[in-house]
Amino acid sequence: MTPQTDFDLWSGTLCKTLEDFLQRHLPEASIVPRRLHEAMRFSVLDGGKRVRPLLAFAAGELAEAPLTSVTVVAASIELIHAYSLVHDDLPAMDNDTLRRGKPTCHVQFGEALALLAGDTLQSLAFQWLSEFPLHPDPRQQLLMIHQLAVASGSRGMGGGQAIDLESTDSTLPLPELEAMHLKKTGALIRAAVLLGAGCGRPLTTEEQQHLSRYANALGLAFQVVDDVLDAEMDTATLGKTAGKDAAANKPTYVSIMGLSQAKDFSRELLWTAHEALAPFGHRRRRLEELAHFIVNRRS
Amino acid sequence: MTPQTDFDLWSGTLCKTLEDFLQRHLPEASIVPRRLHEAMRFSVLDGGKRVRPLLAFAAGELAEAPLTSVTVVAASIELIHAYSLVHDDLPAMDNDTLRRGKPTCHVQFGEALALLAGDTLQSLAFQWLSEFPLHPDPRQQLLMIHQLAVASGSRGMGGGQAIDLESTDSTLPLPELEAMHLKKTGALIRAAVLLGAGCGRPLTTEEQQHLSRYANALGLAFQVVDDVLDAEMDTATLGKTAGKDAAANKPTYVSIMGLSQAKDFSRELLWTAHEALAPFGHRRRRLEELAHFIVNRRS
Repeated sequence: MTPQTDFDLWSGTLCKTLEDFLQRHLPEASIVPRRLHEAMRFSVLDGGKRVRPLLAFAAGELAEAPLTSVTVVAASIELIHAYSLVHDDLPAMDNDTLRRGKPTCHVQFGEALALLAGDTLQSLAFQWLSEFPLHPDPRQQLLMIHQLAVASGSRGMGGGQAIDLESTDSTLPLPELEAMHLKKTGALIRAAVLLGAGCGRPLTTEEQQHLSRYANALGLAFQVVDDVLDAEMDTATLGKTAGKDAAANKPTYVSIMGLSQAKDFSRELLWTAHEALAPFGHRRRRLEELAHFIVNRRS
Repeated sequence: MTPQTDFDLWSGTLCKTLEDFLQRHLPEASIVPRRLHEAMRFSVLDGGKRVRPLLAFAAGELAEAPLTSVTVVAASIELIHAYSLVHDDLPAMDNDTLRRGKPTCHVQFGEALALLAGDTLQSLAFQWLSEFPLHPDPRQQLLMIHQLAVASGSRGMGGGQAIDLESTDSTLPLPELEAMHLKKTGALIRAAVLLGAGCGRPLTTEEQQHLSRYANALGLAFQVVDDVLDAEMDTATLGKTAGKDAAANKPTYVSIMGLSQAKDFSRELLWTAHEALAPFGHRRRRLEELAHFIVNRRS
């Protein structure tokens, strides 16, 4: 067993903080409609690497934001992420049966309820963001709600999924593949960073640009590494169906660049992310560590 | 041809105001991802009786709210309504092919895109509510976002749909049928009234209770009349598939109470709605007219 690093301790503690918040604030499965609430909890609790919440926490530390506010933001973003996975796994979309090592929501609860669970997880994200005080200035809170709505919508994550749909069996040129992923995965990763920082001290325009550069590089890196792992790993290790993009004839960084170049590209993006953080002081530390974690993960 | 009443003029003008806003602010079909934006516009524009937006406008007049703010609220609520129809029509749910006299979204664009169009319409509602100034006090605007999120979510509309799912082939007792509809249809109708009024002068707690009673009665009345029309009318008149609840063995007010008693019940609810408005002055007028319109409509 490798000894726990300081980063492991940090991320473990905050994942616990997140899980506690989700446990407490997701509607209990004993509340009517019970099956729906069960499906919502099933889709959110005990799962995933919590990359987006950790990014929000790390960006919150950069901007000296109070942990209570950042926890709400982290949880709300994770709801959006979880809803997108539930809908993405539906037969009409990717038709996947395995997620985070468990059956997907529609396999467990049926398609209709999975559809509704996704829908109501999205509503709940906006409910939380408008329910808890996130910032002394309520206008800043409205701005954060707006940022998450745009990141989730047709010019963000949802739009990226639509482009992805159309790209099956096509040979997307690299710039278009990149534009697709900047929306599909990047938009929510960017929102995690911006909203996490948004709970803290006001950032200068320059600082915001640096953070955006970091988030964009990291969002792409995340996807490139996903494609590499999808090509290299087996289903058991990933906890989700491996090799599925290749099987569906979807363009990936590996299919377009080749495995070795895709790996190089992920390291370049890591470097860009690091450079973007350089102007920040010691409080950039967790964002740097997260970038390393995301690029060097093995599942 | 019956001559236009003053109410027809009022509602016609405001439906035009709403349509203009939607036309202008829904993402253009020329913006990437084009098919998604086309599907979103298809699902929202030129359709329906716009009952919820008209309720928001009428409640806005009651509270002397500025038209520009109420228009944003009316449009956002209609987005939530439209998204719920798109998802409700999907094969996994009601599997319906006709809506507002047109093919349903998934018939026109495919299931995957209909799913995404519904998802991104929901995001867009929260985007608009956080984008435009709705009230001098931003805390009031946060409250309105919260009200719509709760009304859409698992304890509102989405929860009502989940209860509806489970009720197929069962004999729901009347109180449970009522509880289901108070969520499924009632929650959004209530939100339309509360958010429309929320853009205006602050209401006393008593006034808010009166408005809630009005909205609850009207929400139920809307559903009872829907069930009556579903039993009496043909598909061409309704612009959607008629008799479908009976065919799906779903409990309705008509199946439980009988046609004549269901009609009586709708008139009782209309009376309750009127009584609830009595304490308000002449500004209650449009809300009264809308209650009449909803109960006496023929499609």
